[in-house]
Amino acid sequence: MLDHFNQKIESYLAEYNFPYSPKNLYEPLDYFLGLSGKRLRPVLTLMAAELGGKDAVEAIHAAISIELFHNFSLIHDDIMDNAPIRRGLPTVHEKWNSNIAILSGDVLLVKSYELLSKQSSEHILELYKLFNKTAIEVCEGQQMDMDFEEREDVTIEEYISMIRLKTSVLLGCALEFGFIISNQSELNRKSIYEFGVNLGIAFQIQDDILDLFGDPEKVGKQVGGDVISNKKTLLYLVAENIAKKLNDNKLDNLKAIKDLNKKVQETSQYYIELGVLEETKNYLNHYYNQAIDSLESVVSDKSKVNLLEMVNYLFNRQS
Amino acid sequence: MLDHFNQKIESYLAEYNFPYSPKNLYEPLDYFLGLSGKRLRPVLTLMAAELGGKDAVEAIHAAISIELFHNFSLIHDDIMDNAPIRRGLPTVHEKWNSNIAILSGDVLLVKSYELLSKQSSEHILELYKLFNKTAIEVCEGQQMDMDFEEREDVTIEEYISMIRLKTSVLLGCALEFGFIISNQSELNRKSIYEFGVNLGIAFQIQDDILDLFGDPEKVGKQVGGDVISNKKTLLYLVAENIAKKLNDNKLDNLKAIKDLNKKVQETSQYYIELGVLEETKNYLNHYYNQAIDSLESVVSDKSKVNLLEMVNYLFNRQS
Repeated sequence: MLDHFNQKIESYLAEYNFPYSPKNLYEPLDYFLGLSGKRLRPVLTLMAAELGGKDAVEAIHAAISIELFHNFSLIHDDIMDNAPIRRGLPTVHEKWNSNIAILSGDVLLVKSYELLSKQSSEHILELYKLFNKTAIEVCEGQQMDMDFEEREDVTIEEYISMIRLKTSVLLGCALEFGFIISNQSELNRKSIYEFGVNLGIAFQIQDDILDLFGDPEKVGKQVGGDVISNKKTLLYLVAENIAKKLNDNKLDNLKAIKDLNKKVQETSQYYIELGVLEETKNYLNHYYNQAIDSLESVVSDKSKVNLLEMVNYLFNRQS
Repeated sequence: MLDHFNQKIESYLAEYNFPYSPKNLYEPLDYFLGLSGKRLRPVLTLMAAELGGKDAVEAIHAAISIELFHNFSLIHDDIMDNAPIRRGLPTVHEKWNSNIAILSGDVLLVKSYELLSKQSSEHILELYKLFNKTAIEVCEGQQMDMDFEEREDVTIEEYISMIRLKTSVLLGCALEFGFIISNQSELNRKSIYEFGVNLGIAFQIQDDILDLFGDPEKVGKQVGGDVISNKKTLLYLVAENIAKKLNDNKLDNLKAIKDLNKKVQETSQYYIELGVLEETKNYLNHYYNQAIDSLESVVSDKSKVNLLEMVNYLFNRQS
């Protein structure tokens, strides 16, 4: 079922051509859009449109708009994070340069608006309104993420707020787009949006957990990267909280271990003993259950099964 | 008369508050918007709305939207051009850092769309359409400008095409916004747009000329900066063309002069002798006259005098 939506996205993108010139502006976009991502967000839009009673293809422009926006944010985030690799290949600023990555990203953001204005809907202004709000929030989330690197007093609440803005609201927006286009009620729109946002938070928490406790073969990358770089993930913040209550300062000792394998092994051991893993899974389950609750409250329909299939797909892909 | 429009812009901006948090995202925008620019573009929108028969203030959101977009493009251009100073004060990437300048610029671009969606107009979709087209062209122009630095075969036609995209279409867009909002005919909209674009080209050519031949006290900066940095201005491209026909290679010798005062003095002397200044002024007059022709064809109205006042203001401010 997912493939069916995915094919619509891929075939649209295959036909979608950026202008030929200026080459240094548009070639990076052809390249970056071509790196096979999951196309999760546009698939959500199409699914939601179908769940709302429209033919999925009627939401294609809004769906692609979200995908372009997502790719814009990745191109710029990669510059800011100084990331050399994305989806196994060089990032835009690495393959070209930072200036080209800035400007290509800029034009991609505008292109996402251009796509959105091609979406036929009697509620086009509401699409714009939600898109503006979401885009602003994504930028705010990225800024918070950068700020957190410099701060030692990040709370769990702030962390959740950051991942909500940086990654989750776009999932909510993608789903609500489908519901706006299929003329769903305000209440249903709000429910599907909350489903997406809470699912996004749960998904991000799962990512934090898998980074340390996932099967390296399934995760497809080195286990413990976040521990090695002393990243403030939810696991870390939960550990910090518990350790503080116990007046336990082992966390600082762990952060200072030079032998990286030992550092990862001892930290994961400590997280299990201290109940950090358990507590972090509680957070995951909380947001997962909130997501499912929101979905349950949406008008019943056979297409809902697709969304649940998507949820399962996301939550089992790596664990 | 200009002051009257300018006051509307300044008082709107004084009331316009970016959110307080994240501070590193929004503080740079308060700072940058506060550097007193000419507010030329939003003033054009208000003027055009009034010329079209509306109260100027009815176009205020579209006008501010253009101003925010213009400032977004300046913040990102300053990173790409590695410019330390803007309007006499440190640029955003200089005062904060490049990452903050990228992200603040991004959110400002989104904010410009948000402002536009607040504009009440029965033709809101046409505002969006023109804004998207213009924003894409501005990015293309900036890319061409960067590409030209690496190229030795830039033609005059390409140069005009670059300045049209990079700076002039936004003036056309600002004016057409006012005409869309005041429900003017397609034909009048097209005329006022062409007025703006041609005026922008003429204005940019004047800038090139003033950089070398302006009164340093009135221009407010060192004379000959473009010559010193071997920039491919219209003066240079015209000189290259004439020299080529004459099989004269003095231009290469001039570019190589180490003594900067001598370089500027001898180049300007050469440009006068060779007829370069004259020929470049012909280009300026051509686009200036095209602009005035377009304006003449627009529905006659007493407010037109404001636009002509603006033109005079622009063309006399530095010469």
